[in-house]
Amino acid sequence: MTASGSTTAAAAATTTAAAGTAATTATAAAASRAAGGADERYVVGIDFGTLSGRALVVRVSDGAELATAVHEYEHGVLDEALPSGRALPPEWALQVPSDYVNVLKTAVPEAVAAAGIRPEQVVGIGTDFTASTPMPVLADGTPLCELPEYADRPHAYVKLWKHHAAAEQAERINRVAAERGEPWLARYGGFISSEWEFAKGLQLLEEDPELYERMDHWLEAADWIIWQLSGRYVKNACTVGYKAIHQDGRYPSEEFLAALNPAFARFAVDKVEHEIGQLGDRAGGLTAQAAAWTGLPEGIAVAVGNVDAHVTAPAAQSVDPGQMVAIMGTSTCHVMNAETLASVQGMCGVVDGGILKGLYGYEAGQSGVGDIFAWYVANQVPARYTERARELGVSVHELLTDLAKDQPVGGHGLIALDWHSGNRSVLVDHRLSGLVVGATLATRAEEVYRALLEATAFGTRRIVEAFAEGGVPVTEFVAAGGLIRNSFLMQVYSDVLRMPISVIGSEQGPALGSAIHAAVAAGEYPDVRTAGQAMGRVERAKYTPDEKAADAYDALYTEYLRLHDYFGRGGNEVMHRLKRIRREALA
Amino acid sequence: MTASGSTTAAAAATTTAAAGTAATTATAAAASRAAGGADERYVVGIDFGTLSGRALVVRVSDGAELATAVHEYEHGVLDEALPSGRALPPEWALQVPSDYVNVLKTAVPEAVAAAGIRPEQVVGIGTDFTASTPMPVLADGTPLCELPEYADRPHAYVKLWKHHAAAEQAERINRVAAERGEPWLARYGGFISSEWEFAKGLQLLEEDPELYERMDHWLEAADWIIWQLSGRYVKNACTVGYKAIHQDGRYPSEEFLAALNPAFARFAVDKVEHEIGQLGDRAGGLTAQAAAWTGLPEGIAVAVGNVDAHVTAPAAQSVDPGQMVAIMGTSTCHVMNAETLASVQGMCGVVDGGILKGLYGYEAGQSGVGDIFAWYVANQVPARYTERARELGVSVHELLTDLAKDQPVGGHGLIALDWHSGNRSVLVDHRLSGLVVGATLATRAEEVYRALLEATAFGTRRIVEAFAEGGVPVTEFVAAGGLIRNSFLMQVYSDVLRMPISVIGSEQGPALGSAIHAAVAAGEYPDVRTAGQAMGRVERAKYTPDEKAADAYDALYTEYLRLHDYFGRGGNEVMHRLKRIRREALA
Repeated sequence: MTASGSTTAAAAATTTAAAGTAATTATAAAASRAAGGADERYVVGIDFGTLSGRALVVRVSDGAELATAVHEYEHGVLDEALPSGRALPPEWALQVPSDYVNVLKTAVPEAVAAAGIRPEQVVGIGTDFTASTPMPVLADGTPLCELPEYADRPHAYVKLWKHHAAAEQAERINRVAAERGEPWLARYGGFISSEWEFAKGLQLLEEDPELYERMDHWLEAADWIIWQLSGRYVKNACTVGYKAIHQDGRYPSEEFLAALNPAFARFAVDKVEHEIGQLGDRAGGLTAQAAAWTGLPEGIAVAVGNVDAHVTAPAAQSVDPGQMVAIMGTSTCHVMNAETLASVQGMCGVVDGGILKGLYGYEAGQSGVGDIFAWYVANQVPARYTERARELGVSVHELLTDLAKDQPVGGHGLIALDWHSGNRSVLVDHRLSGLVVGATLATRAEEVYRALLEATAFGTRRIVEAFAEGGVPVTEFVAAGGLIRNSFLMQVYSDVLRMPISVIGSEQGPALGSAIHAAVAAGEYPDVRTAGQAMGRVERAKYTPDEKAADAYDALYTEYLRLHDYFGRGGNEVMHRLKRIRREALA
Repeated sequence: MTASGSTTAAAAATTTAAAGTAATTATAAAASRAAGGADERYVVGIDFGTLSGRALVVRVSDGAELATAVHEYEHGVLDEALPSGRALPPEWALQVPSDYVNVLKTAVPEAVAAAGIRPEQVVGIGTDFTASTPMPVLADGTPLCELPEYADRPHAYVKLWKHHAAAEQAERINRVAAERGEPWLARYGGFISSEWEFAKGLQLLEEDPELYERMDHWLEAADWIIWQLSGRYVKNACTVGYKAIHQDGRYPSEEFLAALNPAFARFAVDKVEHEIGQLGDRAGGLTAQAAAWTGLPEGIAVAVGNVDAHVTAPAAQSVDPGQMVAIMGTSTCHVMNAETLASVQGMCGVVDGGILKGLYGYEAGQSGVGDIFAWYVANQVPARYTERARELGVSVHELLTDLAKDQPVGGHGLIALDWHSGNRSVLVDHRLSGLVVGATLATRAEEVYRALLEATAFGTRRIVEAFAEGGVPVTEFVAAGGLIRNSFLMQVYSDVLRMPISVIGSEQGPALGSAIHAAVAAGEYPDVRTAGQAMGRVERAKYTPDEKAADAYDALYTEYLRLHDYFGRGGNEVMHRLKRIRREALA
């Protein structure tokens, strides 16, 4: 990949992304074609997000992004009612699988058309998905919610990752696993999330046993979409490991599952277990039906499914051991490979081949990052700021950043805990909440905003330190995701971590990562690492730590840690109690 | 005083107060006169505040408020420069004494004229002042700043209560007093403030020894104004006790003062000591000059000086032991009488006759109350609230209160510490700062606002409990000051304290209290208590605790206390460290 090729591709991607939800034409497509030619080969990466799916057309030879198109899901997130109008209880979050198929039918052909290439030039399709987003289907892959008799049954639908109504089941899983000393528990930082497949499956059994009986497979939407594309049901090594407790070739035992609920004993064997494909493997060839949906040639390679965060690592050319990729958006997901199997405090999980075949893939996370900043701007910033931002034609985030960025480190006198959405790593406690200490009558809105930015950097440092403590040190920190646009934030991370920050060179990291996996599945590259080197983009050490700022942040991080441990490790469980008091008061 | 008389008087006071800074006519004056008559006797109460002085004309027989007028000080607060333009260092706050005299020349005659009475009907004048607000004068009372040769010398001016540049001297006073085991230290909760006379006097000596030599007296503006009115220099029992460390008939010893600075040894004897008058005593008769300034008859009674908070107690008919009067505004000052001398944790002081002759007067305080709410509204409330308040024609405070008031106790899931302006009682630590814990992505602006209101109530409960622990229990809680207008806040205080809240019946509590003292000085009543019963106004138990809310607040108060002690008593001195880090960062 040449530097000019990269610039051209980035321009194309930016232009099309800015145009929003409709299919968009890449203005630089002609230039890209000129650089390639009629024999050039392309792949399509499809990123299935929470509210929409995005297709990206990528050149195999150098990863140039030709065009992209987005399709918003017709049903979005069902968190209040089913399509029938039937109301849902609190904490539910469902989706409709036909929405995913519509992404194939619309966004893919639109992106290919916008790229100005011939469909026959496309040699493969790769996908990534939110996870854990499981669903119940019949033996032939038909979603239960598509059976007319089940259209009004909530449990027949896809349970989106943020469906939080299986908390009771997750608690039981964790308690019983701890009591029994289940060896796999340590692989998940000691905690199985209510968001994952087993908790959601147990909820299905206990709340709608008839549907549980009827379902033949309980699988991730990430794998279901591959089934729709290739006609083959093959699970991916990433989600079986991170979300379905598959470790060392085994799911949890029948004895363990029976201890949760006798009727759940054969859940793994009867409902979950199936062939597993490695990331980058060819799941199969595009079916005639899927070829008709997408307008792409029948038989081209369809890659095994994958997850949005994990697929981004090769797009950032960062799959070597010690290269931690942080996908920073609403929340942050950290993925990193290592040669060895280690126990890292509060990690989401470690999975053999979870990111790249042959390495242990580690995942950690911060539950709230960009959404804390967004909450603050929406709820704690006065009119004079919003008006000023409008006058200047910038976002309120940009204005606050600009006002805060030149203050010396510690000049605001504040420390915040970034737990407004709970804490994933390293405390694994969603009953924690936010804190700001140090406000005086002189404190201004931009100072609290900066303290919140810094708090997320401190949270990241705690995670990086946990990896070092666990024996799998982070040697390079690579940022991806929407927040990389805030260069002040990136500099804060560099100063707080005392590490250079490398930054991915694409605004469509997941879709580019999916395209890379497609190229491997199509045989264009021997493996994902090689494909990432050719097609991925990263700017190494774009930000480097300022020694003076780093020294000053050390003092603040010491304060952060002390508050972190006091409120997060039992010194004062006031956050838990306030949440309980709130729940009871509002009941 | 009849109920209708009270209503009429209140209407008059409200009407005139709303008209702002100019002299204003009381529309209800005619009605009041009809109820009285040409032989009715009146007194004038004058409240000298931070930015202005207010005169109030009050009927002796029943305390009806006929009219009021306000005069803004020409020089306001000198905190950046002297009138000459000479710049002042940070933390300085000075005033110009002639501004006080101008209140006598303008506001008094305007109020009398607006009341529609004949000046000859006025039988006495009483005053109250901010404190500690000391000044250096010659033997005849001439302020040093009025000598042309000293006009450009900062130390020649009045040091307003909020002059905070004597912190180093106060620290030395406290350290040396503790080392020597000075018996009076316990009378001030173990802490002499940098705002008080000895710290400010020591600063004067050390920074401008020539002026220190030249001054004959160091006295409170509260006493200087009485000197101007009556021609007599008589100190008042309130400020000598609370602000000049006068206990059991003695000032601090020469040995102690010499230990601070040898040149300071005779400070008390040479500069401070003078005749002391009890509150409500007649200081003297109105001089011919002061009669000319005010338009009032020469020779009428001038009462001994007093302090704004303390003078309010009789205006609220609440001077009996156990009746705590809280003057709630920007900050809150608590005053209460008791039969016995006790040690109350973190009190500002206990003074024999400090509020009422013959009883021990206790004072405590919260450094930030209304100013925390004002800071929050100015810095943390988004445009949609300010716009909505404008549409509704209400203040943002009213809108936030309205939005928050119907939520069940604990429904916001938050706890705040009300230390944005430090903590006076019971921790006596101005290096503390604010804290909010429990915020989530669902937290709204009105919920944090309510948590701040509640935090000040918790702070008050801690003070009330300290009085009980000290053996001088609070038996009735009486609210005065601007915040009594917020009925939700009053109800929160009642629920949190588990006590009925009585509310003063005047919007001009200090000026009314001064008028009451004037009536006593004029011999119209035998003592201040009796005068207060006749002329003061209070609605007893206007708010009573809701049992269910009180139970719920108990749980939140337990959380408040735990955070209070952790951050306030050495569990984690992060607030101190953040202030130090901030100071060093901005230096």
